[in-house]
Amino acid sequence: MTANAPTPAYTDLEARFLRLYRFEHLGSIVGWDQAANMPSGGNEARAAAMAELDGLLHAQRTDPALAALLRQAEAESLSDWQRANLREMRRDWLAANALPAALVERRTLATARCEHAWRRQRPANDWAGFVENFRPVVQIAREEAMHLAEATGLMPYDALMDRFEPGMTSAEVDRVFGDLKTWLPDLIQRVQARQQAEQPVLRPAGPFAQAQQKALSLRVMQFLDFNFEGGRLDESTHPFSGGVPEDVRLTTRYAADDLMSSLMGTVHETGHARYEQGLPREWLGQPIARARSYGLHESQSLSFEMQLGAHPGFVAQLVPLMVEQFGPQPAFTAENLTRLATRVEPGLIRVDADEVTYPAHVILRFEIERALIEGQIEVDDIPALWDEKMAAYLGRDTRGDYRNGPMQDVHWPSGSFGYFPCYTLGAMYAAQWFATMRSQMPDLDERIAAGDLNPVFDWLKDHIWRQGARWETPELTRRASGEALNPAHFRAHLEGRYLGR
Amino acid sequence: MTANAPTPAYTDLEARFLRLYRFEHLGSIVGWDQAANMPSGGNEARAAAMAELDGLLHAQRTDPALAALLRQAEAESLSDWQRANLREMRRDWLAANALPAALVERRTLATARCEHAWRRQRPANDWAGFVENFRPVVQIAREEAMHLAEATGLMPYDALMDRFEPGMTSAEVDRVFGDLKTWLPDLIQRVQARQQAEQPVLRPAGPFAQAQQKALSLRVMQFLDFNFEGGRLDESTHPFSGGVPEDVRLTTRYAADDLMSSLMGTVHETGHARYEQGLPREWLGQPIARARSYGLHESQSLSFEMQLGAHPGFVAQLVPLMVEQFGPQPAFTAENLTRLATRVEPGLIRVDADEVTYPAHVILRFEIERALIEGQIEVDDIPALWDEKMAAYLGRDTRGDYRNGPMQDVHWPSGSFGYFPCYTLGAMYAAQWFATMRSQMPDLDERIAAGDLNPVFDWLKDHIWRQGARWETPELTRRASGEALNPAHFRAHLEGRYLGR
Repeated sequence: MTANAPTPAYTDLEARFLRLYRFEHLGSIVGWDQAANMPSGGNEARAAAMAELDGLLHAQRTDPALAALLRQAEAESLSDWQRANLREMRRDWLAANALPAALVERRTLATARCEHAWRRQRPANDWAGFVENFRPVVQIAREEAMHLAEATGLMPYDALMDRFEPGMTSAEVDRVFGDLKTWLPDLIQRVQARQQAEQPVLRPAGPFAQAQQKALSLRVMQFLDFNFEGGRLDESTHPFSGGVPEDVRLTTRYAADDLMSSLMGTVHETGHARYEQGLPREWLGQPIARARSYGLHESQSLSFEMQLGAHPGFVAQLVPLMVEQFGPQPAFTAENLTRLATRVEPGLIRVDADEVTYPAHVILRFEIERALIEGQIEVDDIPALWDEKMAAYLGRDTRGDYRNGPMQDVHWPSGSFGYFPCYTLGAMYAAQWFATMRSQMPDLDERIAAGDLNPVFDWLKDHIWRQGARWETPELTRRASGEALNPAHFRAHLEGRYLGR
Repeated sequence: MTANAPTPAYTDLEARFLRLYRFEHLGSIVGWDQAANMPSGGNEARAAAMAELDGLLHAQRTDPALAALLRQAEAESLSDWQRANLREMRRDWLAANALPAALVERRTLATARCEHAWRRQRPANDWAGFVENFRPVVQIAREEAMHLAEATGLMPYDALMDRFEPGMTSAEVDRVFGDLKTWLPDLIQRVQARQQAEQPVLRPAGPFAQAQQKALSLRVMQFLDFNFEGGRLDESTHPFSGGVPEDVRLTTRYAADDLMSSLMGTVHETGHARYEQGLPREWLGQPIARARSYGLHESQSLSFEMQLGAHPGFVAQLVPLMVEQFGPQPAFTAENLTRLATRVEPGLIRVDADEVTYPAHVILRFEIERALIEGQIEVDDIPALWDEKMAAYLGRDTRGDYRNGPMQDVHWPSGSFGYFPCYTLGAMYAAQWFATMRSQMPDLDERIAAGDLNPVFDWLKDHIWRQGARWETPELTRRASGEALNPAHFRAHLEGRYLGR
């Protein structure tokens, strides 16, 4: 900050947030290392080092000087981008300062205990044991929601969701999920009936050597225009995209008998990675250059994995790359692989769900967790509600199967209420982006089928990636597609792809 | 720190140094990542993040409260280990506080400029251009030496060397290097004459696939009892051992036509790594649990690479591992590989030098840099001195060849005066450790030849690794071997191995 800057408070804030960004860089890289490289013996020292960094970041974010600077900067003469950056600084500040320290400590202890026990209790189907630890987690989340609601002026559940999807409200989620519920269960049944009448899909026959799977993943990342000067591919138990925008570290995992798992994992994570690589370079280091939201992030991974990854024209481009690595086999045809990528099967487990049934898993969780946070139901009411909604939305009986029912996700034991909607919002955004692209570029599908993905990448770069956190999500959606989030696009996408309409 | 601790100042210091240790953990891991993984595009953001961390560490080390705490702790009732830890805390504090901030800044700028230009100037053999940047580096190093001398009570050059080899003086180096100089040039000539009369050595015939070279390195690390729960092997341009004691990251590099290069690189770095893995666990996080010195560290890598790595009984153990990976070939006999590992050839380049000629490179540099720091010579005097000493010690003519003469090492352009002696001190320590082991375990060589390395590891663990920084180097040497550093052991080792005495 220069002494005679025309915007002294704002300039000071930029310097402080840049410092945070640089310290967070260290955390991102050692976090990636922890998942991708670290031997088990390094765990304790690593956890201590990361906790020390977290403490430093928290101290910097709760420095009392920040509140005054944020106030003073409001009165300074700022550009539009600077003002939006200031809004995002305030959001960052709020997240660190809205909760009493005692509540944060209680939350840390309660979620650590609940999540730790859950790792044993889930395989043991021990619902009774689980609720003992889960009740305090819910109680604390309710208090947290009250505090955040007070600080933001939002409804309690909305205040939790706002941490992941800024600007999104449960009224808006109700509107779009309400629409989905009117047609999704019926669509699932019709797609299933249609697919049962078709001839069986061929699964690629393994084993597939890991080195060749990796070579294929790298080749596909190249096709997806991943910038290898600014990132790399590694392996981890759970695929993720981490690192920093200047050096994105994505991972996949390899199963000898399942080629599609590593390949589609890579395509999904490359979507996340290109969002990060495409964030506005000139603003990197400032909150405005962060990805907008978790839902938007998911819209990028699903644009790659679902919109492109199950697109017949795109799949046809993958076939020669697969043959190049593994030689020809009957399963390696565009038609068969597309059908494999679009198999629909209502199941119990969200993370294994296909594109069509996935939203049902999310809607069910959203409805339960919102009622739980708002106090309309208690923890003991969850299993009956779960069973009822699984029967209604997916026609599956889950009674007594807590392990594959309400105990299946880490989100609740870890206290991440308000996150689930992001998954389906992401799928809906992705469908809306592609509908917009098609209306602007009528030959889009021909160009994809010809192996030219630039129209897709250029559109996403301009409308999503380079916008960073410039706009709140509803405004970004309107600017990108000319309208608010509209479930009709997702419906048209699913009906077009799965019912041939 | 508890309010009623009997040693409140010391307890506070332990907490502060533990915090430093945890922040340094982050720097070590991202530093390793930078060398082993990072794509080029990540460099700028990484450098900024590491500089931010350096600034934080420096601020913590120069906190004015530390000086008072160090004083107060002196008067507290401490155990022997605590008192030694306090001594090492003071050493750490001194390194961060002895120099005026303005001098540190000038040094950073001058060495960065000199090293950066040197990377172009060396290949261009541009001595005249180099000295322009090197003169200020030397001037600043002289000032630095004066400041450190004042703070430590040592002679100026000794004060620089003390940063790397605590407790070592140039008088002591003179004593041992002076001894070497009386017999080394003659020994080099006799070994050469002897080897020229032998039949030629066979080089293993490649190409050697990288995956198999890595498999061999991992197998040899296992044989060397590296703890894979607390570390891993990767690849980098320059092999090194980094990471943290709880998670040691060592690297090697692979050349398709040179199997021995990756293998011996791995053996060398595994020596460094086992020292780190063997540091006193219960003290990790405190300065006393650090490796004692650079010379001691080198004594461990050379115990592995030279004492073991060129030991016929050890080499015989490697042969089946090599055959396992690459099949049999004429070069893969213990006798031939031992002769390959003990080839002596006076050359121009220190890092390519064999065990016998290496000390000559180091003595030459020590004599020149000490005279330079003490002001007995100036930068312009270096080439003539270099030529004269190369002729005297190694019989090589280097006139006009600055690139392969005084410009060959990064140490001088980067201002690391006082480091070079560590290499040869390390070789001498290693010889002394093995002489001591043999006197205590007369069957040592038979056990090594039988593939039982535990006597070596147990001895090093007890006498070196677990001692950490408990003693200053001369005291550690006396305790480990019963006498001061004695060049007779190194001489006996070389004469035994190379002249068959």
